[in-house]
Amino acid sequence: MIRQDVFAVEPWSLRETSLDLDLLAQSESVFALSNGHLGWRGSLDEGDPRGLPGSYLNGFHEVHPLPYAEAAYGQPEVGQTLVNVTNGKIVRLFVDDEPFDVRYGELRSHERILDFRTGLLTRTAEWVSPAGAAVRVRSGRLVSFTQRAIGAICYEVEPVSGPAHIAIQSVLIANEPMPEPDGDPRRAAVLDQPLVMEHQAKDDRSVVLVHRTRASRLCVAAAMDHIVDGPPGTLTDARLYEDGGMVTVAASLAPGQRLRLVKFVALSWSSQRLMPAMRDQVWAALSAARQTTWDGLLAEQRAFLGDFWDRADVQVEGDAEVQQAVRFGLFHVLQAGARGENRPIPAKGLTGTGYDGHTFWDAETFVLPLLTMTAPEAAASALRWRHATLPLAIERAGQLGLSGAAFPWRTITGRECSGYWPAGTAAFHINADVADAVIRYVDATGDEEFDRGPGFDLLVHTARLWRSLGHHDPAGRFHIDGVTGPDEYSALADDNLYTNLMAKQNLVAAADAAGRYPDRARELGVGVEEAASWRDAAEAMHIPFDEALGVHSQDERFTKHQVWDFAATRPDQYPLLLHAPYFDLYRKQVIKQADLVLAMYLRGRAFSAEQKARNFEYYEALTVRDSSLSACAQAVIAAEVGHLNLAYDYLGEAALMDLRDLENDTRDGLHIASLAGAWIALVGGFGGMRIHHGNVSFAPRLPAGLTRLTFTVLLRGRRLRVEVTHDAARYVLAAGEPIEIMHHGDLVRVAEGAPQERPIPPVPQRPPPSQPPGRAPAPRRTAAGQPVTGLPGAAPVLGAPAGTGPGIAGQ
Amino acid sequence: MIRQDVFAVEPWSLRETSLDLDLLAQSESVFALSNGHLGWRGSLDEGDPRGLPGSYLNGFHEVHPLPYAEAAYGQPEVGQTLVNVTNGKIVRLFVDDEPFDVRYGELRSHERILDFRTGLLTRTAEWVSPAGAAVRVRSGRLVSFTQRAIGAICYEVEPVSGPAHIAIQSVLIANEPMPEPDGDPRRAAVLDQPLVMEHQAKDDRSVVLVHRTRASRLCVAAAMDHIVDGPPGTLTDARLYEDGGMVTVAASLAPGQRLRLVKFVALSWSSQRLMPAMRDQVWAALSAARQTTWDGLLAEQRAFLGDFWDRADVQVEGDAEVQQAVRFGLFHVLQAGARGENRPIPAKGLTGTGYDGHTFWDAETFVLPLLTMTAPEAAASALRWRHATLPLAIERAGQLGLSGAAFPWRTITGRECSGYWPAGTAAFHINADVADAVIRYVDATGDEEFDRGPGFDLLVHTARLWRSLGHHDPAGRFHIDGVTGPDEYSALADDNLYTNLMAKQNLVAAADAAGRYPDRARELGVGVEEAASWRDAAEAMHIPFDEALGVHSQDERFTKHQVWDFAATRPDQYPLLLHAPYFDLYRKQVIKQADLVLAMYLRGRAFSAEQKARNFEYYEALTVRDSSLSACAQAVIAAEVGHLNLAYDYLGEAALMDLRDLENDTRDGLHIASLAGAWIALVGGFGGMRIHHGNVSFAPRLPAGLTRLTFTVLLRGRRLRVEVTHDAARYVLAAGEPIEIMHHGDLVRVAEGAPQERPIPPVPQRPPPSQPPGRAPAPRRTAAGQPVTGLPGAAPVLGAPAGTGPGIAGQ
Repeated sequence: MIRQDVFAVEPWSLRETSLDLDLLAQSESVFALSNGHLGWRGSLDEGDPRGLPGSYLNGFHEVHPLPYAEAAYGQPEVGQTLVNVTNGKIVRLFVDDEPFDVRYGELRSHERILDFRTGLLTRTAEWVSPAGAAVRVRSGRLVSFTQRAIGAICYEVEPVSGPAHIAIQSVLIANEPMPEPDGDPRRAAVLDQPLVMEHQAKDDRSVVLVHRTRASRLCVAAAMDHIVDGPPGTLTDARLYEDGGMVTVAASLAPGQRLRLVKFVALSWSSQRLMPAMRDQVWAALSAARQTTWDGLLAEQRAFLGDFWDRADVQVEGDAEVQQAVRFGLFHVLQAGARGENRPIPAKGLTGTGYDGHTFWDAETFVLPLLTMTAPEAAASALRWRHATLPLAIERAGQLGLSGAAFPWRTITGRECSGYWPAGTAAFHINADVADAVIRYVDATGDEEFDRGPGFDLLVHTARLWRSLGHHDPAGRFHIDGVTGPDEYSALADDNLYTNLMAKQNLVAAADAAGRYPDRARELGVGVEEAASWRDAAEAMHIPFDEALGVHSQDERFTKHQVWDFAATRPDQYPLLLHAPYFDLYRKQVIKQADLVLAMYLRGRAFSAEQKARNFEYYEALTVRDSSLSACAQAVIAAEVGHLNLAYDYLGEAALMDLRDLENDTRDGLHIASLAGAWIALVGGFGGMRIHHGNVSFAPRLPAGLTRLTFTVLLRGRRLRVEVTHDAARYVLAAGEPIEIMHHGDLVRVAEGAPQERPIPPVPQRPPPSQPPGRAPAPRRTAAGQPVTGLPGAAPVLGAPAGTGPGIAGQ
Repeated sequence: MIRQDVFAVEPWSLRETSLDLDLLAQSESVFALSNGHLGWRGSLDEGDPRGLPGSYLNGFHEVHPLPYAEAAYGQPEVGQTLVNVTNGKIVRLFVDDEPFDVRYGELRSHERILDFRTGLLTRTAEWVSPAGAAVRVRSGRLVSFTQRAIGAICYEVEPVSGPAHIAIQSVLIANEPMPEPDGDPRRAAVLDQPLVMEHQAKDDRSVVLVHRTRASRLCVAAAMDHIVDGPPGTLTDARLYEDGGMVTVAASLAPGQRLRLVKFVALSWSSQRLMPAMRDQVWAALSAARQTTWDGLLAEQRAFLGDFWDRADVQVEGDAEVQQAVRFGLFHVLQAGARGENRPIPAKGLTGTGYDGHTFWDAETFVLPLLTMTAPEAAASALRWRHATLPLAIERAGQLGLSGAAFPWRTITGRECSGYWPAGTAAFHINADVADAVIRYVDATGDEEFDRGPGFDLLVHTARLWRSLGHHDPAGRFHIDGVTGPDEYSALADDNLYTNLMAKQNLVAAADAAGRYPDRARELGVGVEEAASWRDAAEAMHIPFDEALGVHSQDERFTKHQVWDFAATRPDQYPLLLHAPYFDLYRKQVIKQADLVLAMYLRGRAFSAEQKARNFEYYEALTVRDSSLSACAQAVIAAEVGHLNLAYDYLGEAALMDLRDLENDTRDGLHIASLAGAWIALVGGFGGMRIHHGNVSFAPRLPAGLTRLTFTVLLRGRRLRVEVTHDAARYVLAAGEPIEIMHHGDLVRVAEGAPQERPIPPVPQRPPPSQPPGRAPAPRRTAAGQPVTGLPGAAPVLGAPAGTGPGIAGQ
């Protein structure tokens, strides 16, 4: 957990004003910078002390054997893990020969600010060395959105108490020592010194290093160059050593004098290109960055982000904490996906090595909805990556005895890396999730080139999978047996409702696409009979419903199982997976994360309003939220069925997942899906937005704690802004052709310059549902520190005044 | 596979007359000697060439980490594996300085005979060295049933072509080099040089070695002593080297002269006792053996086996091959269990390291039925071992959140070693199998001391497990969800019928026992309410039945699943587990091994005759028998419902499992359960024997291929012989009080000296069931080589004439 007062509540930035070494690893995650290609954890400039060092290139990984106590057919044998690449972030400082280390001497002041509008991480510190020399240090750091190979640092130091000999040492180092690993020793072994040097060179102020991984044979090149600004007599030299190099700048400074170093770092990797090409590539990137200058990079960064916020910002009035958290989330989701360029979006983005740097269904189901509506080119890029892995997915399906494509549960390259098949291979829903993301993307953007190209391929191969995975019973119903749905506390179930509904959509969408693009259908050998068999299977899809209870069943047997003994479960026994065996979790009614509830969001038309309310109440009492993927879906459906304050609590949980370290693992990286989930909770929950066949509908309603919600979505080239208060919703078309939308079931036509306002109908009154004992979400609090009471108009939390921009960014 | 002509068909022995080096490892398994404490694979005396060296002490193991790609609560972390202990079998021969090695020179003749009545493995060979010196070698080897620490070898050599310098080298060696292992490297690592020397000593003709395992810290002591008989001038000396020692005997022999070495070997192990105690213990055992002499050991062995055959022999007339195989099986089952003395009976006995030397439910369900009726003290010993592991099983149940005891799926010490929980931890039926073995043992022996002691503890703690594992539904039915039954191609099913029926028996038996022994019940805290809750759960136990199909369902969902596509499965894709992922096997109707069919044998009263016939037909079409535990159960029910020739085919498969190497893994050790299963197929199938609450019933009927079946069973101190022909059955009470039995439903009273004969009623006629394509059992053949046609009176296979005893055994 991170206490509420660690970060100041500000609308456009994240600021810490003191340094807590116990939270160092967490702060490295929340202050991480990335553009989706290159990721730098928010380590202190000097590299020490550190939580978890981390410089990452999307897709750059090492492989290791996946161990099993007992062998079985079809088990993935090779694991993949994200590698900490050559570190170019380190800038060390020596004051009269004493190293600047916050653990020694006196840290008189400390501040770090991550600015969501400039993309700059700044730090200011005043430090007194053990010998009594005081200096002021200011640094700014960015990972460029516009020059994807580039990270840059501006580092300034000035003596404040008297003259001092100052040396700044800029480092580029590979194979830096890592904290002691735990877990499988063979996996840990490949991550110890993973890089083998192929080349190194220097001149008087620059260094280049080229390395290659031992087993996966990937090549990474890193280079750094510098601009030095110091008093006359400032000395610069460069040295190389094993696996690294450094540039040292030394000057004697009087108070009022500054030594300033701008450091440009370029990083690239390739599985194909050879050392000379890689070496030259990073030099080219570095030259471009130098030519741009630090101020130029800053300006580009501001412009890129300004454009993003124009189309993506969400304003949340009444809860400054959530306002900050939502922008923090949007910023990090953008960082995770902006410049991936046909690489995956990992569960942690490029902010840490949690989950080995793998990508899961998180990307398609939680992250892409946000990107599709705000940065569609990033969504397309992630889907193109999936498409690029289609040959591996087709191979995997064949290995499993299935047709079509079986996408991996977790992977870096597209090859299945899950070492526990009941929650890996059996979680076939990921294939329908990919299809769902394709359908949503095409629906929202109208991108026909994608639709008839990669989109078509993805829909057809996933539809084939479902047709071969399911079967008809003697009565003609179609069943999908023995699969695992989103809820990881259930597994290998017959007719998981989520899976069946998502597969149904997938089958129909593929058949429709085959009708839309007959030439492409011919190319993939999709005949009339095959498409008809998809429609038939979809039409006959079995949807489990428990007549006795009057609710849908998560799977054919779920509601028949014993209910978990929540009363006998102590608070310290959550998450349950650390305290109970899978066999017991699987055979009882206990839910890790929204499953049927997520289906009610993604496939809402399959349920009546009454069913949604009853289902939500039933499953709410069984859901323990031991996964960060749960709260946002619960928020959406809670809002839809009228439990607005509960939805608000879930919004808070999703949004604050990392700023409060709610799952105690933010040190390993951010929960990108949960951060995106905060947007889903706001837009899908309180905005009530749904898209279906190009039609967009809203059913906005605010909880008591919020006074106004404003968000913007991109819809087929249009920019639609939605402003919601307790009384009314206003639809503003900021750009584009007029559009027809639904507002609480009523058709509304919105044109540019002609905003439409509609009243919010009263919320249906229902008794509040209950959660398992102790598992209710933390209530959002009023300014007086009281939980939200449910009364509209409760006093909102007031945010602290926004800080001014840092000095370095203002240069 | 082993060709039919490799072993001569003889009623009381297994003989090979040529040496096929490709079958060396298989022959080491079938010629293995053991007394249940010490096991020696049937390696050639000279130790080279070899398939898999093997000397084992029951329970002596090393531990290693169990690896997992993904961690989970409750996973067993430590594996156990049987260790190849100090090898005392090796006797090397040098002829004029050339080593006797069958790969060099000329092997003029070779014969090995395992005699089931003497327990002696003899070998005769005539060999010409590369230099042209010819010798005759005769050796005899035994592992003593009466002196459990002792193995002994009598080795004789004589020159046949001219005088020769002969040296015999008797070796005792630890950490002998093993063939290259495959699989997990960490597991393999612990088996490379597993023993650390603690002590070694010698005098002029004896050697002692004491070693300890590195991780499990078990101490093993081995010693050898010799009696030499040679011409005047014969020289004897002893030497020690690292991890070993040897005694060399050298003599110059003229044709007609012999050099004879009798070697006594003693082996013991302990987890508690220290080196000096262990060293002295093997010396003591060795002294006793020397005092007994080779001939004395032989005589004891004969007497021990004579007694066994008197009460256990099964005579099968009409099929000499099955006759031999059944005695081979009885002999090896006796070897596996005779002197275990509160140690487990591993799946492979002590004949190899298959399954890491672990014990499974095989022991209780397949091996103990035979031992209970023929060697009840061995059955009691195996059950006492289970009882001794009760504290570990109680601990494991607690770890799993359950009451009572959860016995391990696979283990050496009683600690769970299964690294794949869906087919390990989830296979809770092993607990009911243990209870079933207790009930059967007490039923057959009337051993009240066991009943109120260990039996009571086992019944109560397993009943508690079932009560906590299951739950009632709103209608009051009792369900056991999410468990794995015997069929390993299904897993994590709700209400596995086998498990539910076996648990039901377990619950009732425990409640009955609590009534029988109120003092013991008080001691274990079993109150009236708890016992009543067991009876209630048993009474309310849900038994899945598919009304539409008119058959019982293997579990609640089984008959709803898609049927495996047998038509598309090629013959080379069996066993399916090597060619299909578990996820697909689990969710389809395909059965690895008898599950519901086994339930119809063990809990036959839960089914009507008509249900048995219908169920058998239904499940027969789905059962691929990829497990050696299947054929015998199918044989029993096939016989019961009237498919006698099919039962006969299954008998053949069970009996010949290892003599024909039907599963291509006899090299790793024998399938002790399948060998015991041949007895089950004969006695339970063609004898139709069942016991229930002390009442024994028979329903004998022979298949066309057999003319007579005679078997003897022990029943509460009585010895009852049953002789079956096609027309009649004769019941002979060889010893004991008069007994009432049932013969095909009619009460028969049998007294000593008053045999009763009853006619066999006609067999019900039913159309033959079908198996999955290509998975019908191999038909038993007539003497003319034709498959059995189903006509009674078909010409039987005639066995080859019995061989005479070997020379060495005759001394």
